[in-house]
Amino acid sequence: MKPFEHGGRVYDADGRQKNWLDFSANINPFGMPSTVRTALEKNLYGIEHYPDPEARLLKAAIARRYDLDVENIAVFNGAAEFFYVYFRLLEPKEIFIPTPTFSEYERAALAAGLKMSATAENIILCNPNNPTGQLRLVDEILHSTAATVIVDESFIDFVGDEHSVKKFVGRREGLIVVQSLTKIYAIPGLRLGFAVADKKIIERLEQSKDVWNVNYLAQIAGVAALDNQKYLDRTRRWIEVERRYVFERLSAIDGLKVFEPTANFILFRCWTEAAAKKIIDGLKKNNILVRSCGNFRGLDGRFIRMAIRLRAENDLIIDCLKGLM
Amino acid sequence: MKPFEHGGRVYDADGRQKNWLDFSANINPFGMPSTVRTALEKNLYGIEHYPDPEARLLKAAIARRYDLDVENIAVFNGAAEFFYVYFRLLEPKEIFIPTPTFSEYERAALAAGLKMSATAENIILCNPNNPTGQLRLVDEILHSTAATVIVDESFIDFVGDEHSVKKFVGRREGLIVVQSLTKIYAIPGLRLGFAVADKKIIERLEQSKDVWNVNYLAQIAGVAALDNQKYLDRTRRWIEVERRYVFERLSAIDGLKVFEPTANFILFRCWTEAAAKKIIDGLKKNNILVRSCGNFRGLDGRFIRMAIRLRAENDLIIDCLKGLM
Repeated sequence: MKPFEHGGRVYDADGRQKNWLDFSANINPFGMPSTVRTALEKNLYGIEHYPDPEARLLKAAIARRYDLDVENIAVFNGAAEFFYVYFRLLEPKEIFIPTPTFSEYERAALAAGLKMSATAENIILCNPNNPTGQLRLVDEILHSTAATVIVDESFIDFVGDEHSVKKFVGRREGLIVVQSLTKIYAIPGLRLGFAVADKKIIERLEQSKDVWNVNYLAQIAGVAALDNQKYLDRTRRWIEVERRYVFERLSAIDGLKVFEPTANFILFRCWTEAAAKKIIDGLKKNNILVRSCGNFRGLDGRFIRMAIRLRAENDLIIDCLKGLM
Repeated sequence: MKPFEHGGRVYDADGRQKNWLDFSANINPFGMPSTVRTALEKNLYGIEHYPDPEARLLKAAIARRYDLDVENIAVFNGAAEFFYVYFRLLEPKEIFIPTPTFSEYERAALAAGLKMSATAENIILCNPNNPTGQLRLVDEILHSTAATVIVDESFIDFVGDEHSVKKFVGRREGLIVVQSLTKIYAIPGLRLGFAVADKKIIERLEQSKDVWNVNYLAQIAGVAALDNQKYLDRTRRWIEVERRYVFERLSAIDGLKVFEPTANFILFRCWTEAAAKKIIDGLKKNNILVRSCGNFRGLDGRFIRMAIRLRAENDLIIDCLKGLM
């Protein structure tokens, strides 16, 4: 596995989407909200025009949903793009990335020529953390350091608004919150993310990125998704029940050390790399993809991450896992 | 008008698309090919997965259409993104941008901290050039300098493959060709572009960009568009007739100096800035947008650029212009 390979590789050798049961990407298993599908179908011809470079409807929807001012918001072609843009602006060229965590931070840091340093003036925290699924003590870190802290809240909507630190932006200097909207609303193919920061940082980000970075359909989908409170409520009712269910069932399987999740994915460790490989290959034969964590810095080939999906799908993978152990 | 404002601003103050007759963006007036619309509708649910990070189907389609090797191709979230990524890699931090030309080059250069220098080792040529609509002597420039030349061929498909220098990539060291696919196929809202260069440059570009930069629907649309030879043939038959028609009709209007176009847009100069402003405002009252060139370096408020559209639309704007002069 290459160092920066990710989950969600549902494509065949030619690049065609295949019908995997995909537990390797942490996407909301309800699929895109019906309001998003309707909005996309209705506005398909809108792609014959450039996107709104100011993304006004989208920023207004983000501001409404998270109780923010539009001037504190910049939008990106996925949360990943934020890191590529922001890292290029850093002086000195250093970053601190506590591991294990999402490997795209390190890839973006290398692309910007940054060095890893525990004393860097910029720290990245993914909260809840990918791939461990656990909440970071963000409040305490914000109080105990003067560094600029970038908090990636891409999975926070699966947990609850009370854990978000967006409310501290503008109050705690040097706080940037970045968030993908594609996991919670099941639209990773469209690419959509945003950053929340004080006005000066937002202005620098805006100047540093292509003016049309967020495509028209992503803007349309974002608005329809963010205004759909019912979908979010339903998602939270599901994940609260299902993450406990999957955690308990997995924990009951001999030979797996399971880490208690807070979000929509779960990490576990097998006894050996060989056992993990057997599981991954065995699941593949059953048309199921999970994520080997062998290329996460700080983890190794014994670790596997899987998404939490709908009950029938979860029962299916748990049965497969039992059979393979 | 702000320095980096563009055409195609069809949005109202809130960010909603309005039904302008848009001559301000240089988009194929046939609208997206029917094969693209069908492919998007059919594959809409594919956005619930990440895009293929290697964009294999798309790269294969680009390679087929332009007779290239896939290893010489990198794909981007619009041609604009290429410049943001590539400019960050330049050492020394200098670029030569002959003007007047597309202003996004300069914006990307400033974002990367580049200085403008006539002796820079990297030169950008837009061919045919935006906003003048004229072909550059690219062959001669490639022979007369050792600099790396970046040729933006975003409008070349409106002119003809024989004017493209893609065939020299790999033969002439330091040649990069970049191209948007959104003008010729009328999908600017989706964002889609590509670069052609030797393998080493492509590898550096791939490492420097976000792995999911081209969204899934842009990949789908690109494949469907590039394989549609009929649409391209029809477009070329139309533009060959229509650019002459519009050039002649505009040239016959007293008080306009019209520059002969090679592509799908046409530049003209009014006697005074006041006259140009009167035209732009008058057209707006008729629901028509054109592009003031007051913010193009090397031009001024007397210059106006307009797209060439379908016959009835062209007759409409020409009649309006006659009435306003």
